[in-house]
Amino acid sequence: MKALEERIRKDGIIREGNVLKVDSFINHQMDIRLFEEMAKEWKRLFAGKPINKVLTIEASGIGIAAIVAREFDTPVVFAKKSKSINLDDDNYTTKIQSFTHGRVYDVIVSRKFLGPEDHVLIIDDFLANGCALMGLLELVEAAGATVEGIGIAIEKGFQQGGALIRAKGIQLESLAIIESMDESGKIVFRE
Amino acid sequence: MKALEERIRKDGIIREGNVLKVDSFINHQMDIRLFEEMAKEWKRLFAGKPINKVLTIEASGIGIAAIVAREFDTPVVFAKKSKSINLDDDNYTTKIQSFTHGRVYDVIVSRKFLGPEDHVLIIDDFLANGCALMGLLELVEAAGATVEGIGIAIEKGFQQGGALIRAKGIQLESLAIIESMDESGKIVFRE
Repeated sequence: MKALEERIRKDGIIREGNVLKVDSFINHQMDIRLFEEMAKEWKRLFAGKPINKVLTIEASGIGIAAIVAREFDTPVVFAKKSKSINLDDDNYTTKIQSFTHGRVYDVIVSRKFLGPEDHVLIIDDFLANGCALMGLLELVEAAGATVEGIGIAIEKGFQQGGALIRAKGIQLESLAIIESMDESGKIVFRE
Repeated sequence: MKALEERIRKDGIIREGNVLKVDSFINHQMDIRLFEEMAKEWKRLFAGKPINKVLTIEASGIGIAAIVAREFDTPVVFAKKSKSINLDDDNYTTKIQSFTHGRVYDVIVSRKFLGPEDHVLIIDDFLANGCALMGLLELVEAAGATVEGIGIAIEKGFQQGGALIRAKGIQLESLAIIESMDESGKIVFRE
């Protein structure tokens, strides 16, 4: 998606270790107008799919997912990263390794909000090694729900996550796929 | 707001210790249509205020804030609950006591995204003792920004937070204020 690629070139900051900071418009400050353009693009890309729920994971996926769900006219369920005393024990659970934060999270979704009747669009801001997405796919499978597709804002095409997901035959639509980047600011997007 | 009060009566679950679970429509599964109605109500209540930014705190505030920001045509900034290696050191920082999770969080907002030019609408799902809001107000004050108002979905009117905030002269608009509730399911809303 041109608008997102241009925004990444303009406002993204590349740091050592293949870190791309997009905190001025995606995951700390959120540009809601841009999110709406992204939502409309996913609406086009997933046209005809019987999506009745958007699934994401806290925290930075939630804003994008809310705007996407508005476009699809569905609720959002966000997977939670740790057990709170406000949650029932009746949850689907998995563990996700976060390389960004250097730890393993327990991730849960209540059984009440995901079931065999659900046709799910998974939304997240980043795809790199695919650990978070694999965890969400496990939760959807445990619920007996159907994954209709996955929408990602920014995919690091030089990491394995995208290939792993596509090899499963799932429709994965990343709006910007980075082939390579370096600290001089050079970014090459996949055509 | 009638629609929210009715939804709380219908789908809210009251647990021991004055816990109100609204995870089927507010803070685990999110009813985006309801969020839009809430956003329009805040738009009406804060009409004429020069709001140029919505501020919230991860995670459950983010979805509501995104829909509200769409209505106000502003970006959202969400305060983060712990330091990630993806964040600069150049942050406003405070500590917030969470009674729900039984711990103290470091809460940060990057200096890049909050400054003297900002007129902020703070949005959150719950107001009880006011600890989270007081923390956000500290961050806004540290940034030299102006608080134009606070929009809360559900206020526990029998706890101190609302009175503390209103005593500061800040326009606080809670869309449902619970005067009392008990485990039989009885809820009394403030008129």
